[in-house]
Amino acid sequence: MSLLGIDLGGTKLASAIFTEAGELHAKEVIPLNDQSGIAVGKLITDQVKKYLLSEKFNIKSIGISIPGISHDDGTVWAPNIDGWENYPLLDEVKLVATDVPVSIDSDRACSMLGEMWHGKAKGTRDAIFLAVGTGIGAGILINGQILRGSNDIAGAVGWMALQRPFAEKYTGCGCFEYYASGEGIVRLAREVLDGKPHYKGELRYLDPSSLTAHTIFQAYHLKDDVAVSVIKQCIEFWGMAAANLISIFNPEKIIFGGGVFGPAEKFIAAIHQEAKKWAQPISMKQVRFEKSTLHGDAAVYGAAFLALENLNRHEGK
Amino acid sequence: MSLLGIDLGGTKLASAIFTEAGELHAKEVIPLNDQSGIAVGKLITDQVKKYLLSEKFNIKSIGISIPGISHDDGTVWAPNIDGWENYPLLDEVKLVATDVPVSIDSDRACSMLGEMWHGKAKGTRDAIFLAVGTGIGAGILINGQILRGSNDIAGAVGWMALQRPFAEKYTGCGCFEYYASGEGIVRLAREVLDGKPHYKGELRYLDPSSLTAHTIFQAYHLKDDVAVSVIKQCIEFWGMAAANLISIFNPEKIIFGGGVFGPAEKFIAAIHQEAKKWAQPISMKQVRFEKSTLHGDAAVYGAAFLALENLNRHEGK
Repeated sequence: MSLLGIDLGGTKLASAIFTEAGELHAKEVIPLNDQSGIAVGKLITDQVKKYLLSEKFNIKSIGISIPGISHDDGTVWAPNIDGWENYPLLDEVKLVATDVPVSIDSDRACSMLGEMWHGKAKGTRDAIFLAVGTGIGAGILINGQILRGSNDIAGAVGWMALQRPFAEKYTGCGCFEYYASGEGIVRLAREVLDGKPHYKGELRYLDPSSLTAHTIFQAYHLKDDVAVSVIKQCIEFWGMAAANLISIFNPEKIIFGGGVFGPAEKFIAAIHQEAKKWAQPISMKQVRFEKSTLHGDAAVYGAAFLALENLNRHEGK
Repeated sequence: MSLLGIDLGGTKLASAIFTEAGELHAKEVIPLNDQSGIAVGKLITDQVKKYLLSEKFNIKSIGISIPGISHDDGTVWAPNIDGWENYPLLDEVKLVATDVPVSIDSDRACSMLGEMWHGKAKGTRDAIFLAVGTGIGAGILINGQILRGSNDIAGAVGWMALQRPFAEKYTGCGCFEYYASGEGIVRLAREVLDGKPHYKGELRYLDPSSLTAHTIFQAYHLKDDVAVSVIKQCIEFWGMAAANLISIFNPEKIIFGGGVFGPAEKFIAAIHQEAKKWAQPISMKQVRFEKSTLHGDAAVYGAAFLALENLNRHEGK
């Protein structure tokens, strides 16, 4: 028997087939290509239909990770997908899944579930998955339970206030995310470059016309001044944010994941050093910093684990 | 039957008798007068003996709130009391309490328990008690359970990093506490005054030789420039910290308590306004800001509630 895990991101849809033991069998990634509203819903239901019809797999349960909030009534809210304010995703998927159970949860919760099932949070009771990608969010495990908050939007750590005074530019994404997300890294580099018009010609490694987090990390390793200053500032923000989570939660582990960790993996020791300056010293001594080893698949693993848990509930296990 | 609640602070010891229903009958406060080590332990056991011997009360259970960490083995760690690294408080109190059950918890946990029993957290599942006094800490309620962390030091929010870059002066208390605790308010005013030696004579309302949080609040209301700038900066820090807790926890309520709220109560609306700039907007809409109505007694209420819960466990209720 198989589990279908689906991870909807802001720019792509990942689907994967897992065994009950958490072995990943087949994974497929489809770009969203700026589609929105029911078109995105159809992408998901088409994937579900395809895998359910396939004779290769015997899918017994489906789990879906969404970049936003999953409501109890089966509707979801995803701020980065137009038309997904109260989108009836559960009903749509149930219609095509017929008697196969379907469950939905946020990417914050799913990433943590994935790490608990087959990643770095296995066997821990108190851990934080800090996801730094296009945006920033966290899956937070407390005494073995995922932190939900009163309306299931806990973990919105990208909104952390880390730099006084407030600036209008933080509106819409939050201060921490503004500076230290994948988009933030590009934004910061652009800000620095805008302030240095004369610097343009000297930039051997950083092309202002095609800035991405990736090119900035490359330029950092070639010792480009702008890239070095931008990454140094990011390390400061990541360290402060990690410190705050350590002082507040006293966790066993902080697991760094998302697209940026990735290339920022090599800075984890420097982030630890920065965090150490700020955090409650006893909690700091007790925490371990680790990199997710699920290679960006934490949420799709978690979606499959969600499916497994839902199946077990259905079967009264 | 009665419950004895004891709240050890950094400078004083409060004891109070409660009914099972949470009615406060008698309260007594003893200053520590810089005593440390076993002298503080003796203050507590003397109180316990006195109340147990009193014919007026029929004490069935004892709860103690301590400003630090309560370990499973009954020892406690209180950073502000010399000689209390691994102090065997539970054993000492049990010796005098004989067959009356004794339980100990941190002031962060006790304050939240007090608010749940008879304060503003009654009936809530997700709330934060932000205690701003000499220091800063938080009691955090998640889905009806108190956040402990992997080693029971969760809630050390005074260590929150809110102001880049790191400064050596934050070591020992944390950035947020450095600026916005009762001591921080005095420190800030002193920093401003040190930078304005010529300003000395003009200070009609603020006497640099006898600065306290209290005199600074008074001077604020008399529109003293230094006091106004200091309090405005504190509002900014309190707002940022509240915003971070809102974005991270998505709580129903933030309850402001401790000695500073108190006089800072009238700034709660301004703190809300500042937090609104920073916090995740949906969580911000859902949260309510309230002032503790237990008048600094949240921890002693909580200690008594701890005693009640322990008694119920003993009696198998």
